[in-house]
Amino acid sequence: MKKASIISVGNEVISGQTVDTNAAYLSRKLLSIGIPVVSFYTVADGIDSILRALKLAAGDADVVLVTGGLGPTDDDLTRQAFGKFLDSELQLQKELLKRIQDYFAGRDMWMPAKNEIQAYIPAGAKALVNNLGTAPGIMAKVEDKLLVALPGVPSEMKQMFEESVFAELQKLAGAQAVIEKKLKCFGAGESTIAEMLGDICLRGRNPLINFTVEGGVITLHIIATASDKSTAVQMAEKDEKKMRKLLGDLVYGTGEQTLAEVVGKKLAQQKKTIAVAESCTGGTLAALITDIPGASKYFIQGWVTYSNKAKISELDVPADAIEKYGSVSEQVAEAMAENARKKAGTDFAIGITGIAGPTGGTEQKPVGLVYISVASDNKPETKRFVFPSNRVSVRLQVAQTALNLLRIKIADLTYCS
Amino acid sequence: MKKASIISVGNEVISGQTVDTNAAYLSRKLLSIGIPVVSFYTVADGIDSILRALKLAAGDADVVLVTGGLGPTDDDLTRQAFGKFLDSELQLQKELLKRIQDYFAGRDMWMPAKNEIQAYIPAGAKALVNNLGTAPGIMAKVEDKLLVALPGVPSEMKQMFEESVFAELQKLAGAQAVIEKKLKCFGAGESTIAEMLGDICLRGRNPLINFTVEGGVITLHIIATASDKSTAVQMAEKDEKKMRKLLGDLVYGTGEQTLAEVVGKKLAQQKKTIAVAESCTGGTLAALITDIPGASKYFIQGWVTYSNKAKISELDVPADAIEKYGSVSEQVAEAMAENARKKAGTDFAIGITGIAGPTGGTEQKPVGLVYISVASDNKPETKRFVFPSNRVSVRLQVAQTALNLLRIKIADLTYCS
Repeated sequence: MKKASIISVGNEVISGQTVDTNAAYLSRKLLSIGIPVVSFYTVADGIDSILRALKLAAGDADVVLVTGGLGPTDDDLTRQAFGKFLDSELQLQKELLKRIQDYFAGRDMWMPAKNEIQAYIPAGAKALVNNLGTAPGIMAKVEDKLLVALPGVPSEMKQMFEESVFAELQKLAGAQAVIEKKLKCFGAGESTIAEMLGDICLRGRNPLINFTVEGGVITLHIIATASDKSTAVQMAEKDEKKMRKLLGDLVYGTGEQTLAEVVGKKLAQQKKTIAVAESCTGGTLAALITDIPGASKYFIQGWVTYSNKAKISELDVPADAIEKYGSVSEQVAEAMAENARKKAGTDFAIGITGIAGPTGGTEQKPVGLVYISVASDNKPETKRFVFPSNRVSVRLQVAQTALNLLRIKIADLTYCS
Repeated sequence: MKKASIISVGNEVISGQTVDTNAAYLSRKLLSIGIPVVSFYTVADGIDSILRALKLAAGDADVVLVTGGLGPTDDDLTRQAFGKFLDSELQLQKELLKRIQDYFAGRDMWMPAKNEIQAYIPAGAKALVNNLGTAPGIMAKVEDKLLVALPGVPSEMKQMFEESVFAELQKLAGAQAVIEKKLKCFGAGESTIAEMLGDICLRGRNPLINFTVEGGVITLHIIATASDKSTAVQMAEKDEKKMRKLLGDLVYGTGEQTLAEVVGKKLAQQKKTIAVAESCTGGTLAALITDIPGASKYFIQGWVTYSNKAKISELDVPADAIEKYGSVSEQVAEAMAENARKKAGTDFAIGITGIAGPTGGTEQKPVGLVYISVASDNKPETKRFVFPSNRVSVRLQVAQTALNLLRIKIADLTYCS
């Protein structure tokens, strides 16, 4: 079985300014094609430190992936360290230089002289195209080892890895088969889901079930290992079926799907439209929805009515409802949703009002108290939640919870029609 | 100068299921007392792999901090690896056993037999109390090296580090002082800023200047090392002054400040208010602004007018302007900003319209084309940008750019008044 080692380069990583997410991403990708990662090395920007890590990593593994140190400034030294490790000179590649010049020209900018260094690649190595930035990657084979250098900026790194490296690694992995399927869940905590799943979660079992949690979304990783791919796929599918049965509508999707994507797809399929009226989430829900390409098909408009004045003037929330029940109340959430739906002329609208904190809470209305209302052509449905967490994650969780309410509502409609 | 190395132990880390935040936390803590971290090693749960990392780390540094592998299950092997490295047997510490038993008793739970192993510590080493869980830490001195093992759960690790390790390290660090100041910049790329700064960025210089980039924000880290703190502070301040002079209004703040925070603070100080009208950013700008506690003081409301219909009905954008110039045009951005300002009755308003992609671009109006208009009691100022990047980062960059335009506008007003 082929093995891999990952090197993260950068003073910002080793000094703790940046948390390294690249290594975890690459490790998951490698595992998905049956190449386990056996070591991570994190080193400062320095030719000697990078070179030493390259030697250690090449001793551990067949594949060495390096991220970082390909930028244009003097502290970017991965190119030079690769050159030393490969024992070859850096050479100017004119085509790369042209790409970098074009990158700046496309932005109506002059190319700073410093960026020229990014067009240099060790002789004999292959340059990897960067579609999102100026730093090309490097791929080289030395004896039976594959060495790859990728940019440190996560978006550039991922794009380049998926475009130019992953297929190469799949070839290398050969007939081993490790399949990973992901089930995305929303609406219950990790331990509740674990209890619902029971023995399926036992360690040492194959498929192995791992949990990860982010922004309220629980991802169940079903990792099946077999001598061939179709057996592994069957094993994973069998588990998926069992788990879906146990979890019901807690499962909203698979793979990398987000709630916004799943809800958007459903709205587009059903040719339905939506509007949102937000208070405490301050635009987070609209941003989640419109983050999906093609959202303009179903998302018509949003209001961020942060002040009571705006709630009254823009969404006709009755001033006496605010007076009587407070701006964080079922009545106000409902009026926001209903009136947003009417004004935008959409099939659905979501109204959110709450106390995101850190201040503004009282004993009766604590920080984290939120009302979410979903308006449709039936009576609006309004729910009360208390999210005990910090400001940023409250906002995201609230917006996700709103999407999840809409998801369940749309699923119901499909079922009835 | 004392140096440190950090080892993260765990299959969940090396397989990418968990992103390691412990190493970054410890590194920042160590740097704050003048002990730079020179290497991170991440290894799987295995006696040999941990032992090898201990040897490498002890070769690199005077202080070795290990996180993870202290749990009660069979795959927790840091205790055993420490024993091997120290060449001493694991011994039952009765007091530790009692603490673990008490931990369970306090929760009305039976102690699983597996937890007993956590009361074993290599002979000659010191146990560190865990107030949040069952895994004690280990501290040992071997020759002139200090070795510490901490739990992998971040909350337990931090609590134990702060309670039982930090003071010990401060003693060890002695009179060394490393000061880090951060300057936050927006409005130019990394290489442009590096060229503007010139020799200040040279490697090997003290203070050392490092760059990090996130969402268009360039952070300049000024790291000054001296024999005492006040000298280091003076050195960093001297550099900060020089750099501010060279970079002018590209510098928007210091430390962990965001653009939204700096702009918000200024608006609050000047008792000014703002509204936003967004198309392609879909709520991202409103979400950035309202992410700051206390934003309700100055943020009145936002519109996400994604459709042309909404632009016309909600913001009175003239239909013939959309017809004549297109919805992505200077005229529409300006109308959005002006009318948002009027409707919300605010001092400022920002209007944004553009093509976030991935589709919808043409040769004349490419993906990434954005108009941002800032309305005030003078004529609105509208700028054209082309952001060539992926959807998510375009939206964030556009929203940040809008905040930056407002920041510069407010600074001007202060200057004139």
